[in-house]
Amino acid sequence: MVSFVNDYSQGAHEEVLRRLVETNLEPLPGYGADQYCESAKEKIRRACQCPAADVFFLVGGTQTNAVVIDGYLRSFEGVVTADTGHISVHEAGAIEFTGHKVLTLPHHAGKISAEQLRAYLQSFWQDGNHEHMVSPGMVYLSHPTEYGTLYSKDELIAISAVCRERRIPLYLDGARLGYGLASRETDVTLPLIAQCCDAFYIGGTKIGALCGEAVVFTKGAPGGFVSFMKQHGALLAKGRLLGIQFDTLFTDRLYWRISEQAIQMAELLKQVLEEAGYPFYLKSPTNQQFIILENREMERLSRKVAFGFWEALDENHTVVRFATSWATCREDVEELRRILAEKE
Amino acid sequence: MVSFVNDYSQGAHEEVLRRLVETNLEPLPGYGADQYCESAKEKIRRACQCPAADVFFLVGGTQTNAVVIDGYLRSFEGVVTADTGHISVHEAGAIEFTGHKVLTLPHHAGKISAEQLRAYLQSFWQDGNHEHMVSPGMVYLSHPTEYGTLYSKDELIAISAVCRERRIPLYLDGARLGYGLASRETDVTLPLIAQCCDAFYIGGTKIGALCGEAVVFTKGAPGGFVSFMKQHGALLAKGRLLGIQFDTLFTDRLYWRISEQAIQMAELLKQVLEEAGYPFYLKSPTNQQFIILENREMERLSRKVAFGFWEALDENHTVVRFATSWATCREDVEELRRILAEKE
Amino acid sequence: MVSFVNDYSQGAHEEVLRRLVETNLEPLPGYGADQYCESAKEKIRRACQCPAADVFFLVGGTQTNAVVIDGYLRSFEGVVTADTGHISVHEAGAIEFTGHKVLTLPHHAGKISAEQLRAYLQSFWQDGNHEHMVSPGMVYLSHPTEYGTLYSKDELIAISAVCRERRIPLYLDGARLGYGLASRETDVTLPLIAQCCDAFYIGGTKIGALCGEAVVFTKGAPGGFVSFMKQHGALLAKGRLLGIQFDTLFTDRLYWRISEQAIQMAELLKQVLEEAGYPFYLKSPTNQQFIILENREMERLSRKVAFGFWEALDENHTVVRFATSWATCREDVEELRRILAEKE
Amino acid sequence: MVSFVNDYSQGAHEEVLRRLVETNLEPLPGYGADQYCESAKEKIRRACQCPAADVFFLVGGTQTNAVVIDGYLRSFEGVVTADTGHISVHEAGAIEFTGHKVLTLPHHAGKISAEQLRAYLQSFWQDGNHEHMVSPGMVYLSHPTEYGTLYSKDELIAISAVCRERRIPLYLDGARLGYGLASRETDVTLPLIAQCCDAFYIGGTKIGALCGEAVVFTKGAPGGFVSFMKQHGALLAKGRLLGIQFDTLFTDRLYWRISEQAIQMAELLKQVLEEAGYPFYLKSPTNQQFIILENREMERLSRKVAFGFWEALDENHTVVRFATSWATCREDVEELRRILAEKE
Repeated sequence: MVSFVNDYSQGAHEEVLRRLVETNLEPLPGYGADQYCESAKEKIRRACQCPAADVFFLVGGTQTNAVVIDGYLRSFEGVVTADTGHISVHEAGAIEFTGHKVLTLPHHAGKISAEQLRAYLQSFWQDGNHEHMVSPGMVYLSHPTEYGTLYSKDELIAISAVCRERRIPLYLDGARLGYGLASRETDVTLPLIAQCCDAFYIGGTKIGALCGEAVVFTKGAPGGFVSFMKQHGALLAKGRLLGIQFDTLFTDRLYWRISEQAIQMAELLKQVLEEAGYPFYLKSPTNQQFIILENREMERLSRKVAFGFWEALDENHTVVRFATSWATCREDVEELRRILAEKE
Repeated sequence: MVSFVNDYSQGAHEEVLRRLVETNLEPLPGYGADQYCESAKEKIRRACQCPAADVFFLVGGTQTNAVVIDGYLRSFEGVVTADTGHISVHEAGAIEFTGHKVLTLPHHAGKISAEQLRAYLQSFWQDGNHEHMVSPGMVYLSHPTEYGTLYSKDELIAISAVCRERRIPLYLDGARLGYGLASRETDVTLPLIAQCCDAFYIGGTKIGALCGEAVVFTKGAPGGFVSFMKQHGALLAKGRLLGIQFDTLFTDRLYWRISEQAIQMAELLKQVLEEAGYPFYLKSPTNQQFIILENREMERLSRKVAFGFWEALDENHTVVRFATSWATCREDVEELRRILAEKE
Repeated sequence: MVSFVNDYSQGAHEEVLRRLVETNLEPLPGYGADQYCESAKEKIRRACQCPAADVFFLVGGTQTNAVVIDGYLRSFEGVVTADTGHISVHEAGAIEFTGHKVLTLPHHAGKISAEQLRAYLQSFWQDGNHEHMVSPGMVYLSHPTEYGTLYSKDELIAISAVCRERRIPLYLDGARLGYGLASRETDVTLPLIAQCCDAFYIGGTKIGALCGEAVVFTKGAPGGFVSFMKQHGALLAKGRLLGIQFDTLFTDRLYWRISEQAIQMAELLKQVLEEAGYPFYLKSPTNQQFIILENREMERLSRKVAFGFWEALDENHTVVRFATSWATCREDVEELRRILAEKE
Repeated sequence: MVSFVNDYSQGAHEEVLRRLVETNLEPLPGYGADQYCESAKEKIRRACQCPAADVFFLVGGTQTNAVVIDGYLRSFEGVVTADTGHISVHEAGAIEFTGHKVLTLPHHAGKISAEQLRAYLQSFWQDGNHEHMVSPGMVYLSHPTEYGTLYSKDELIAISAVCRERRIPLYLDGARLGYGLASRETDVTLPLIAQCCDAFYIGGTKIGALCGEAVVFTKGAPGGFVSFMKQHGALLAKGRLLGIQFDTLFTDRLYWRISEQAIQMAELLKQVLEEAGYPFYLKSPTNQQFIILENREMERLSRKVAFGFWEALDENHTVVRFATSWATCREDVEELRRILAEKE
């Protein structure tokens, strides 16, 4: 069955896998001290145009969010996010497990605005009881968001400015960062993100790797970060597994090339869904598309195509997600076109 | 200056203090193992008509909430509350510090309803991603709420029924419980609370004690609760300080008598505020009253009466709180009447 | 029955209680913002000869240790202590609850030495695997120790020097500080402690107060300490209860006077125990004395005098503790003398 | 340079890698719900002769220890271990990060005995102050230990019996379990471990996998374990990476075959080291050997062979570790023999 169910249902890009095989028997130091990690870090610094950045490799997204956020916040501080933020909804309380409250603002298509943030921070610090409340100690954005939407260059710069006024770090969750950078509707680049953020991560798991996320601290990492990772169970013994993958992804623009492939397929997918006459809940500029299906149609379709349940819209309609990935090929989308054509 | 600023600005009721003085030199075992703690527990069990209850004394409300909630929840579970709940807003992240998310529902005058709760729990367990979300592991109510409002008998019974269907404990924060029980507009009694809840606390700090809250576990406390309290820094060496106070408060209905005094004064206060023509933001059945003041009037008034800032309503108006307590006397309210009469 | 069981079995010194009664109906701001807290802090700063110190009042010793230690340490750091330290043995894991390891060194009569500490820190930082180990982030001393022993001036200065070399804070647990300062065998003063330590607490619970410990941060408290206390459930609503007690204890040298009384009684107690021919396990310069009793003698004696079990020495002998306190009077010790005289 | 520095310096066994490549493009469900995880779990249950076991795959050893231990313990409980246990020394406080104390017993060649454990537990529960102490809530063994030593069948059964008397779970850290099972000097089998323990993990990282540890709960996992893993940042999105590796390792006895290879090489290594006349600090029955080198000899040798620093023995001597692994071949050991022969 053709599948658009998510962007992590296949293994790794063949280049990534090939390099793992080639280097497999080389004896290397553990815990990220190997030459591939070093090389990957250097390539990432160059791609970010941020030569002084500290780069660390972690295994997965929830782990990365928890470690970075706990690394920045003081005990009584919380992290500000859109209420749809992954850390607020789908990480099983991983942030709270580290002792910190997730402070939510109402989202607009998965995003928050600089104005919203400024007003919130101002009202917090003006509140006479703020010592009895959780202090906003940093800001979390996801880019692309959980809805596949993107911040514009101006929006990012404006949010970054608010954070700097208030001297709190800005952190960006880039689980799907490649798909954002490769979008046809973005003016945001990796160097811009590095300029705007204190930290962000470049997602590997959803973009061609078996696992792995690269955290970039643009102004240097919190002190003792290796011990901190170890304490959080986030320091991989065979760090090579992450280093080799990211070194490959950042060689010859592989990370961009495979992201572009996913975006091309997403654009084609949008066409196909549109032609089939399904109303869009949200037509995103990245690899996730959200359409509204009448429930019986959803059931019928689900026998032929794999897609993701998103949320119930009303009693009779459901929002569903179609996602492309680096592994989606033209044949998959054409197969979907054929299936939808049969619907009558 | 006459003060209605809060209900914890004076020391202890004179009877309470007298007993502390009388017993002062008696050598007693530490950590709550003394006879006064035993006697107080027994009186509380009787007042609750719950002979099998476990009773513990803690020092303050935030501490009590954190210890009880952390005592019930498994690591990945959260506590459901109205978004205005004290644990959500004004405890500086004490619940999150113990590793648990506070799960909020929109409040109605500080309350949540059984219907709201049932719908939320149903939708949570139906969500295909619920394993990646924070499980609702218990429910928190405050009674009176942060707005001074009260649950009715039927409301409490209905919420309790939802909790039992889902097999999650119901916990009630009674920081101001006496003022709720003494209200003229309630059909809720202490035995009813004991029947409906798995745990609740009877607030002392705001009702006649120097400090102290009595937690009642109606079906028995979580195992090892003394060690648990010790680990949370919540086990008082001189437990007598709490035992003697609660023993006194639960002798000859003192807890009720002083609560009734506060309620009488609150009723008089409502009259006085009404006569003065101030619009009520919320006229509560307990000891806290919320009125709306035009900002210049607020400033003028604040030079003669102490009251509490609640929240900005709009650019020109502010919600303020007037609270009575066990220590408020008729002279205080009459003095307020005089001050308000001068206003023109 | 005459009791030497511990130093917290009675209420408060009569002066302390008298002031609580006198000030009882004064309306005061909550959460430690009242004038008595201010006055007490100022008196403590003066007694410490440390005008820039930040002073906070907490309720109990375990709570204080957990809050101060968690306030200083970064997530992956631990606190170094003698293996007999209260935080290591008798706080039910309160430090670990805040996420930090307690790093133990073998004690010598309850103490550690500067040499021990220096060697440990040196070997830690030389260990090639130290990034995978818990970093020593601060040092904890108790003074008097759990055995009633005292550091000398030279010892404290030497330990402080090691901490400064390594740039880690030195914290002193003064649960029984008064009894240490009033000892006839000490050259340590409160100003010396303030010079040597980054933080310490002046115990109230065991020295004349109903409850309460005064934390002194000699170089300023960690930022946001009020929120931090609130989050840890350690911010008392009626802060007056602590402020008034410490204000009284630091008026007219009351804290010293009542400590001296306990020490006089301890010296007399040593005489009486010695005359009775009991071997000392540890004859301390403060208010706790440890003797060795043959088990049958222990049982016989325990019917007439209350004392504390310390530890089993061998199958037939037990170490027991006799403690005096501010409330011990000459009659108590003379009564003990009579009881011991009857033993044949 | 020939290397015996550790057992995780190469990638994965070629069979494991081959299967990752073969299955790479198959679309599979995420988070461990795929067929390879199912198949691997079933094979592990069979190998353990424990059909009712719950099996989960985690990424690394420290993460696994923290998740399992935190999953079993109540808040105020700690885990008992030899003082040389990995969780006590080399996990940067990962256990304490979850709020639990590590309770240490003195080791004997890395092990603890049933007698030691029984005496400790008895004395704990007899201590009058045990409510103020950290309760021993489970027992942790490593097998092989950090010194490469092994428990015998009788020792494991005896320790297990103590745990059952006290009703606390027994957990075994099998980071190097294969090397223990393949030892020529053991009577312990996988089914025996499953009978004796409530939980244990079968290490993959050090035995042929890129990463991954398989946790076996012989009597069922703690409730909600998937959410618990997610909250701890330990739930891998592409669970296939772990499932496929363990499925391969447990096909055709691969896990045993590659462990046996390492043991053969370790036996040869012992011969070679012995012939060279180096005194053994500890000659282990598994893949790690510890010898004592005079410091100048250590330096000389380290230019030609890679080995691991273990600890300074005295001013002039150092304990060093030589480890074989699944990837060590006869040529490596023969090369070492040649190097050592040159030493005169």
